[in-house]
Amino acid sequence: MPTPTLEQVLKERVTALVGDDLAAVEAEIRREIASPVGLIQEMGGYIAGAGGKRLRPILLLLAARLAGYRGPRAVRLACGVELLHTATLIHDDVVDQAPLRRGQPSANAQWGDDASVLVGDHLYSKSFALLVRDNDRAIMETLARATVSMTEAEVYQLQLKRSGLTSEDDYVRIITQKTASFMSACCRIGALLAGVEPTQLEALTRYGLDIGVAFQMSDDSLDFVADERRLGKAIAADLREGKRTLPLIAMLERVGEPDGEHVRAMLRRRALEPAEIEHIRRLVLKYDGVGYALDRAHAYARDAKRDLEVWAPSEERELLTLVADFVVDRDR
Amino acid sequence: MPTPTLEQVLKERVTALVGDDLAAVEAEIRREIASPVGLIQEMGGYIAGAGGKRLRPILLLLAARLAGYRGPRAVRLACGVELLHTATLIHDDVVDQAPLRRGQPSANAQWGDDASVLVGDHLYSKSFALLVRDNDRAIMETLARATVSMTEAEVYQLQLKRSGLTSEDDYVRIITQKTASFMSACCRIGALLAGVEPTQLEALTRYGLDIGVAFQMSDDSLDFVADERRLGKAIAADLREGKRTLPLIAMLERVGEPDGEHVRAMLRRRALEPAEIEHIRRLVLKYDGVGYALDRAHAYARDAKRDLEVWAPSEERELLTLVADFVVDRDR
Repeated sequence: MPTPTLEQVLKERVTALVGDDLAAVEAEIRREIASPVGLIQEMGGYIAGAGGKRLRPILLLLAARLAGYRGPRAVRLACGVELLHTATLIHDDVVDQAPLRRGQPSANAQWGDDASVLVGDHLYSKSFALLVRDNDRAIMETLARATVSMTEAEVYQLQLKRSGLTSEDDYVRIITQKTASFMSACCRIGALLAGVEPTQLEALTRYGLDIGVAFQMSDDSLDFVADERRLGKAIAADLREGKRTLPLIAMLERVGEPDGEHVRAMLRRRALEPAEIEHIRRLVLKYDGVGYALDRAHAYARDAKRDLEVWAPSEERELLTLVADFVVDRDR
Repeated sequence: MPTPTLEQVLKERVTALVGDDLAAVEAEIRREIASPVGLIQEMGGYIAGAGGKRLRPILLLLAARLAGYRGPRAVRLACGVELLHTATLIHDDVVDQAPLRRGQPSANAQWGDDASVLVGDHLYSKSFALLVRDNDRAIMETLARATVSMTEAEVYQLQLKRSGLTSEDDYVRIITQKTASFMSACCRIGALLAGVEPTQLEALTRYGLDIGVAFQMSDDSLDFVADERRLGKAIAADLREGKRTLPLIAMLERVGEPDGEHVRAMLRRRALEPAEIEHIRRLVLKYDGVGYALDRAHAYARDAKRDLEVWAPSEERELLTLVADFVVDRDR
């Protein structure tokens, strides 16, 4: 029998611990997406349906349990964060003009930009309504802060993309505000549900931030080296879309001249030819930009695991530790 | 001296009554839009800046005063609804691929669809954060319900646009959910701030709904007959964008065959030629579709004025009456 992968182990143990809750989250998502308007039902079901890792609901559920919360609100809020996440994915794919998402045509490819903008807005408003029904000020503040931060970072990323270059500091700032602040909010909501003391609240908040940064650095590395079929989208999509991620930034630091200036000149232009993309990708591999990015990702994952040490050992703590390993050790 | 127009009279009396509050709303909007990210500041300032009628903040401020509220929250919430309104305008122009807004290039024409989607999302999240800071459950519920309703109606409108035809019932349902529910929410928030009794609360809520429907029917009529320079966009833009509004629907009811079938066949195709648009527009004028739509708009405006009768006469009540007249009697 082959050794199970980390993803398989994690999936099995998560299912054993919070499988019922996750099934309830799925049912709640389907209820929220149900609509008299056919296009909402169809698109919402397509996007929120198969293929997602449900990482944010899992984080929220595990954090809530670790912090000692047992009750129905974790499932409802886990549904809320997944709806919000789905809304951002739909809009991101419009912004990036992405043809694929998880190996399937993206919503914009299938239904058009117009429908995608509107259905994204609708899911956003549904998650807002769900939060208002739940009626917990600290939780609403947490998600309001995260969404302000995420959307600000998205615009900043676009602004830098247009100017052509991104520094490592800018990159870390963007992914912290964009990806990590949302994962951090999910963990914080779990802790808020349980009403733990400030040290523990901040530890879970920081854990979410650390795995978020690690997750995104790993994601951006996969873009250069993953198996396209496993990843569910084309290789080097970020490069094609003009996103300057850490492996590229690290390569530019290391490459020396004249290669560096040559690449910078390419990046300053709007659109890259396929041959140019492949040329840059090879340079990133040659100068081990991916190795650099994954090293930094692993350091954040280590920090994340250390964040958990304020808690006594438990199955929940172990699973969150495994999540920290998983976000930097995956193939899709 | 020429007789002042209704718009001038209204503007003068609104300024006399709540001019200070409106100036405070403007300052608050500028503070909310201020951002370390240049593109947010630039686009937000452009769209939220000059040219808007500020109808929603005015409704909220007048409703709050009529209901007896005196305090700082009305200004803050008026800023919140205008930010939300601005976000929907930006996204609407992306969806409709509109080149102009209030006589200026639209945000998407000037900065691209990608930036417009993201800055719209950012303004949406800022208004959510503002509401959470204000921390009033009934007010948040009111706006959550309105945004769910608005975004659902937007998708429904798109779905009908793709299927080619819209009935009068569908049309009324869409504008009620889309335009009127938001204006109604603004008036309701004013009443909620004052904590009035249910009859008065529902009367102001209904007033907002009635002027909202009247406003949109009038807006859709202007699209066929307005002076392009006054309107700030091209005539028959709705027709060009595939929107089936009341003057068109009324014409189709009246036109008879074979003209009706000829027009329906045109509408079933995706894009119309300029000559076809002009042909349809002339038929709408010939069969007085605009007159029909304006008659219905006036009926809603009358209902709106009747809604106000639960209140004792006051300058606030009179101004809201003038607003009801204004929404159906304007040239832009």
